[in-house]
Amino acid sequence: MGGGHSSLSISQGSTTCLALSCASSPFQPQESQSNSLNFCSAARFLEPHLPKSSKIFIPKSLLRCSKVHKMQTQVGDSVKSIVDPHDIDPKLVQNLAYDALVWCSLRGLLVGDRNSEKSGTVPGVGMVHAPVALLPMSFPESHWKQACEVAPIFNELVDRVSQDGEFLQESLSRTKKVDPFTSRLLEIHSKMLEINKIEEIRLGLHRSDYMLDEQTKLLLQIELNTISSSFPGLGCLVSELHRSLIQLYKEHIDLDPNRIPTNNAVNQFAEALAKAWNEYGDPRAVVMFVVQSEERNIKTLAEIDALGELRQDGTLVVDGQAVAVVYFRAGYAPSDYHSESEWKARLLMEQSRAVKCPSISYHLAGTKKIQQELAKPNVLERFLENKDDIAKLRKCFAGLWSLDESDTVNDAIEKPGLYVMKPQREGGGNNIYGENVKEALLKLQKEGTGSDAAYILMQRIFPKISHSILMREGIPHKEQTISELGIYGSYLRNKTEVVINQQAGYLMRTKVSSSNEGGVAAGFAVLDSIYLV
Amino acid sequence: MGGGHSSLSISQGSTTCLALSCASSPFQPQESQSNSLNFCSAARFLEPHLPKSSKIFIPKSLLRCSKVHKMQTQVGDSVKSIVDPHDIDPKLVQNLAYDALVWCSLRGLLVGDRNSEKSGTVPGVGMVHAPVALLPMSFPESHWKQACEVAPIFNELVDRVSQDGEFLQESLSRTKKVDPFTSRLLEIHSKMLEINKIEEIRLGLHRSDYMLDEQTKLLLQIELNTISSSFPGLGCLVSELHRSLIQLYKEHIDLDPNRIPTNNAVNQFAEALAKAWNEYGDPRAVVMFVVQSEERNIKTLAEIDALGELRQDGTLVVDGQAVAVVYFRAGYAPSDYHSESEWKARLLMEQSRAVKCPSISYHLAGTKKIQQELAKPNVLERFLENKDDIAKLRKCFAGLWSLDESDTVNDAIEKPGLYVMKPQREGGGNNIYGENVKEALLKLQKEGTGSDAAYILMQRIFPKISHSILMREGIPHKEQTISELGIYGSYLRNKTEVVINQQAGYLMRTKVSSSNEGGVAAGFAVLDSIYLV
Repeated sequence: MGGGHSSLSISQGSTTCLALSCASSPFQPQESQSNSLNFCSAARFLEPHLPKSSKIFIPKSLLRCSKVHKMQTQVGDSVKSIVDPHDIDPKLVQNLAYDALVWCSLRGLLVGDRNSEKSGTVPGVGMVHAPVALLPMSFPESHWKQACEVAPIFNELVDRVSQDGEFLQESLSRTKKVDPFTSRLLEIHSKMLEINKIEEIRLGLHRSDYMLDEQTKLLLQIELNTISSSFPGLGCLVSELHRSLIQLYKEHIDLDPNRIPTNNAVNQFAEALAKAWNEYGDPRAVVMFVVQSEERNIKTLAEIDALGELRQDGTLVVDGQAVAVVYFRAGYAPSDYHSESEWKARLLMEQSRAVKCPSISYHLAGTKKIQQELAKPNVLERFLENKDDIAKLRKCFAGLWSLDESDTVNDAIEKPGLYVMKPQREGGGNNIYGENVKEALLKLQKEGTGSDAAYILMQRIFPKISHSILMREGIPHKEQTISELGIYGSYLRNKTEVVINQQAGYLMRTKVSSSNEGGVAAGFAVLDSIYLV
Repeated sequence: MGGGHSSLSISQGSTTCLALSCASSPFQPQESQSNSLNFCSAARFLEPHLPKSSKIFIPKSLLRCSKVHKMQTQVGDSVKSIVDPHDIDPKLVQNLAYDALVWCSLRGLLVGDRNSEKSGTVPGVGMVHAPVALLPMSFPESHWKQACEVAPIFNELVDRVSQDGEFLQESLSRTKKVDPFTSRLLEIHSKMLEINKIEEIRLGLHRSDYMLDEQTKLLLQIELNTISSSFPGLGCLVSELHRSLIQLYKEHIDLDPNRIPTNNAVNQFAEALAKAWNEYGDPRAVVMFVVQSEERNIKTLAEIDALGELRQDGTLVVDGQAVAVVYFRAGYAPSDYHSESEWKARLLMEQSRAVKCPSISYHLAGTKKIQQELAKPNVLERFLENKDDIAKLRKCFAGLWSLDESDTVNDAIEKPGLYVMKPQREGGGNNIYGENVKEALLKLQKEGTGSDAAYILMQRIFPKISHSILMREGIPHKEQTISELGIYGSYLRNKTEVVINQQAGYLMRTKVSSSNEGGVAAGFAVLDSIYLV
């Protein structure tokens, strides 16, 4: 799922979902009707009367670009004075940008350049620095701690939910009728229930995404990704980049690099995969990555169908090699299943005793519909005992409704700017905002075919607007931005033994939210890190 | 100087110097008339009757791409069985190439892609993996040790020669008349002699380049670079890349990663710069990099002219900052001096008490003419006392002659294929080979203007032809190749105290030497590492 909401897919394409209608909407957080998932949000809403409230923490000295004693290593007090980065001395911005770009080149903070013809054919050609923020984004320490604290609880919740086959089947029964993709996943899930398939070793590599709601000051969950959680690698590098820049420019930027939290997502993911391999217990078996495009050393779903087999003892064998762990970097979107081949491969793997990251039930537990079901009263209680834990999770749930809740649907038709319609299907870019929410709801009501089950309604979150400098194609852009924080979680259980259950790094994504006089600009998103305040 | 002979400048341009006439030349090493400096060499000479003599050490198991026990960590005996890499299983080559490209992307083994419009405008855009060999090149351990052993002796020789102003001026007196560039350098040098300028702190970051002569099995010096020695950074990464690949494919490639010598060139260069800064003793002073193009945080010669000044006490101040160390990444080629500005800047720095890497006398000590003078009988003895040291250096001197040695000139007109004519001027690509040697010599004789002093004659070295797989633009190419080994040396002296004098890493460059039936192919060069045998 993470892939669909990736900043890179946004940054290099064009953003089609725009907040067209909410400019005059009343802002009513107590009615919990806002959400800006997928970075398609508050653009026009806050323009042109944008409050200059959101600034990052650059001391005044930076503006003056003052010369400080060269050997001075003690910066003095940790400074939290806030200066608008848009006011930073342009020469200093240039120097920072230059050094950031060099750093990206030297340390592999790179992506394929879609402008390059050759990019994507093989690695190592047509590369460009990843779109990044030049400096870290401020983030309240209390909310950071809150997000970290709930990570293992969400890990556990997913595991518990995944074991409740009835709950998954029941919750998704209406969705099944209108969404062929979810239907196919449920079909595999049913088969596993029928044969009473036991997943002894369970590996979860999740990412829970949050936005800070500006009015309520609440950390609200956007979604929980249980498959293909993206950017653990590049995300870590951005934290390092920002720490390096702050260190390098310590004379001009009075920030403390240690206030950027350590980000070991990629190592923690790798460690979890290795430990899952270890639990599997066959030193000759491999870890297999399932990927989208045709690449080497890794397998596509179609290849797994062609080359895969199941031994009597449940061992998955692909191309002659026993597989201990299957990591899905693909398989989360309908477009990953071109034919029956891919579905057969998915079933084959699910039937095997290989550790799946994720298993079909973990995958289903991460669907929007389940997210919405879990937000209903008394549902969390079905899975968790600890009342504190339940309260902590509930605190970060945004308003979520199914489309058979007519009161909410009517409210959304009246105030469409305060809701987001999210399709059950994953893949990003399909959310419905603003006046389109009204239109879509009215259309569904008229049709009355039950296809409303393919959607949920979510409170539209209006995050803080900040001033950032975003690097794209080598050029720093001063932009008004919104940000989304993803917290990675890793979970590994073998029978009753929980081997790993922890928060495992983070991903900050920052996206342009500005609008021009002539119309809303197509925003782009970058990778970012956080600076605790 | 190193820049001019860089493989990258060759690999991305087109090679203009080709060995057109030597196909039928007799091979007479005892007459010491061969040299293939600058990789413009033995192409047609060894085609099409190329002996399959040169192969690297890949065990037979690789050819069979055999499956080995996955957990086997002990490779067994260190294997030196030699298998032609051109015979490696194509699927294994594909896998190796893929992983090499991923490694390059992740670890910054990258260059700007000249095919990309944006490349070169700012860092971080339009990047492609550096041209590299897929596997290390075999190199005899004895010759490796020999090359390392003479590194500190060459460091010392440069330092001694640089102190003999009379020797430098005298040796270059004829060159001065015909080469305006050397003349300008000598002018600055004269001024320093006049004011009896003392360089208390001397920093040398050299690279001595060698080829292995196939017939004599001698390690012969091609040149000694005392300014802008290139590739300490990327060179180190290639050694790491090769070690990683061998480790990753240990089941298929039975090589010992530890036989690729540790390469810390970039750290050792950085350490030497830091220590020179330390010797200078002003914690507020900076290390300044002099560069070619307009970049930030670094200065061009013209900027130094505009912004630089000399304080009464000899301190160099540029843009308000005292400079402790000047590192020249530019200034070695006439094209770096666009106007009088650049020469004024060079003089200004030379007059200052900043540590220059290199000083004008170090720069001059690295000229071709001085190399040729040092090769004359009894000249080394003028600078070094230790007879062993002298013998070691002399052992790696190729035949070198000035153009006033008429016997040699006549021989070269007769057998032009066994000589290379090298211009005194640096910058690469200007060497004269084959029939052109004859033409050029006859023309100079006819003119009789003394412009023969702008050149030296050098024995043409015929290096071993190897089979390699070279990576360019994401694609592995099986090629017949020749290689050149550069040994870095770092030297730092403060008055009588020698702070550093050591070998400081290496650079292997491998270049296509094949020719097609239709004509000689424009060869390209790649970065390589060595595997000791």
